[in-house]
Amino acid sequence: MRIWERLPARVRLVEVGPRDGLQNEPVAVPVAAKLRFIELLAEAGLSDIEATAFVSPRVVPQLADAEELFALLRQRSAGPVYWALVPNMKGLERALAAGARAIAVFTGATDAFTRHNIRMTVLESLVAFRPVVKRALDEGLRVRGYISVCFGCPYEGSVEPRKVLDLARRLLDLGCQELSLGDTIGVAVPTQIPAVVGPVLAEAGAVRVAVHFHDTRGTALANALAALLLGVTTFDTSAGGLGGCPFAPGAAGNLATEDLLYMLHGMGIQTGVSLEKVAAASRFILGVLGRPPAGRYLQACSQIAAPAGAITTNRDERR
Amino acid sequence: MRIWERLPARVRLVEVGPRDGLQNEPVAVPVAAKLRFIELLAEAGLSDIEATAFVSPRVVPQLADAEELFALLRQRSAGPVYWALVPNMKGLERALAAGARAIAVFTGATDAFTRHNIRMTVLESLVAFRPVVKRALDEGLRVRGYISVCFGCPYEGSVEPRKVLDLARRLLDLGCQELSLGDTIGVAVPTQIPAVVGPVLAEAGAVRVAVHFHDTRGTALANALAALLLGVTTFDTSAGGLGGCPFAPGAAGNLATEDLLYMLHGMGIQTGVSLEKVAAASRFILGVLGRPPAGRYLQACSQIAAPAGAITTNRDERR
Repeated sequence: MRIWERLPARVRLVEVGPRDGLQNEPVAVPVAAKLRFIELLAEAGLSDIEATAFVSPRVVPQLADAEELFALLRQRSAGPVYWALVPNMKGLERALAAGARAIAVFTGATDAFTRHNIRMTVLESLVAFRPVVKRALDEGLRVRGYISVCFGCPYEGSVEPRKVLDLARRLLDLGCQELSLGDTIGVAVPTQIPAVVGPVLAEAGAVRVAVHFHDTRGTALANALAALLLGVTTFDTSAGGLGGCPFAPGAAGNLATEDLLYMLHGMGIQTGVSLEKVAAASRFILGVLGRPPAGRYLQACSQIAAPAGAITTNRDERR
Repeated sequence: MRIWERLPARVRLVEVGPRDGLQNEPVAVPVAAKLRFIELLAEAGLSDIEATAFVSPRVVPQLADAEELFALLRQRSAGPVYWALVPNMKGLERALAAGARAIAVFTGATDAFTRHNIRMTVLESLVAFRPVVKRALDEGLRVRGYISVCFGCPYEGSVEPRKVLDLARRLLDLGCQELSLGDTIGVAVPTQIPAVVGPVLAEAGAVRVAVHFHDTRGTALANALAALLLGVTTFDTSAGGLGGCPFAPGAAGNLATEDLLYMLHGMGIQTGVSLEKVAAASRFILGVLGRPPAGRYLQACSQIAAPAGAITTNRDERR
């Protein structure tokens, strides 16, 4: 079928494990371990790593070491862009002082979710972000905008694709250079991707649109396939599937970097990232956290240690 | 995009949990529990349930109660077709004596796998199955043919799509009314689906071709989406993702029935099956087995019933 010939030749991954993953873990991770994790991810070839967030240490104690981490990163980083999430001007000031060169702001597609998350309506959040984005751009930073719950909201239910497009336009107008459309609670199904992402992609172009899927109900990789077929070329993923519910062993959070890499490489799509090196980074941080991986590739029996496409024996094989 | 308009309106599921799932579990399940599990699956609306296999009790002790189970099923069943796997003429005789009305034979796409699995080459297995299939057809039984490792073999690596097509033709020639193409070790990626399943589908037609994906590396649902886009309308799945490695909590085996149902229903594709009733059946048997689910939908944090509920009601509007 011709649709398979339209797949992109190359895809860019934005690794969100150190931020979106670790902020949801109950275990406090020493800054040295975070640094090592990020270094391993960088060595794996990831070009974009969301390293931390400059948020309230009271609300997210897991990321209270943001300054310390960024100071260490600055000294050691060479290749990747290290992104930092900032919720407001105070967060931006902290990020700037720490030497961040790329920041992300975040709002949601529904008022109910956004109120719950950042105590503002969507419009209020846009008003609040305007000076933050302007200041960041004035300082020469790269700016990314997250839109949460684009495919379904835990409070409002279904979300009109039109609302996502309107919000995307406003974030682009503010100056965001890239948007990330999130399925924050992992409810999306593949037919929603053309409906929700399609219009934004048509408006902003593929280089400015990322998708951010959670694998809560198992649909993340199928949604990623739908996004690839639509022409999306940037995907947010989390090493080891970090961000899964720590209270449900094996339950999924963010789409695991390894799972997407396995599929992409198997389909001949280039990423510049080593699956095995990402897996090694994940095993390192999972050891620190003392928890099993939430991603399928890493969960597979007998700890598959072969590159994508290679095939190993495990117990599932017998009929 | 037009590709999304070509999705089938209705899909048929073949539930393989009681056989493919339970045969891989280390816990011996009492026949009464198997019966209850199958009854719950039938009540969920599943039209096809692979109930057991008439294989050597020495090799697969988990299914040693096949006669007993089928006797109980015969007395109670009304709706679904209860399939039984048979490896040879002896198995068929047992199945016939037990009152089975639908059987499945199985071979593999590679000699190495087939030798390992049933101690025959592929050609030898076809020779062996010829009288079995003939006898079954003479008795008026429905006959299904499984082809394992169509997308990759643990011993031979990659598999030529041509070999799958040749084997499919031979099984159809033998009299198999339906083929199930298996990704037995869960290595397939979506671009393999048109390459491997496409030619068989073109030859046999959608009503005679099923796909049987394992979620070992997380690609099962994406592969299912690729199959849907190709026109496949029959999917083998396993309630609760049974068949996952019991030694790796959360690791995946067969594609979970719930995960496929969530995606299909979300995309407006009818199945005639109640997702919540399948989930209830899974919870029942997982309780007997004393293990967590391997399927994502069931694994999701806090049993997702609350947030998903608001969204599920408007499912059709979400397209």
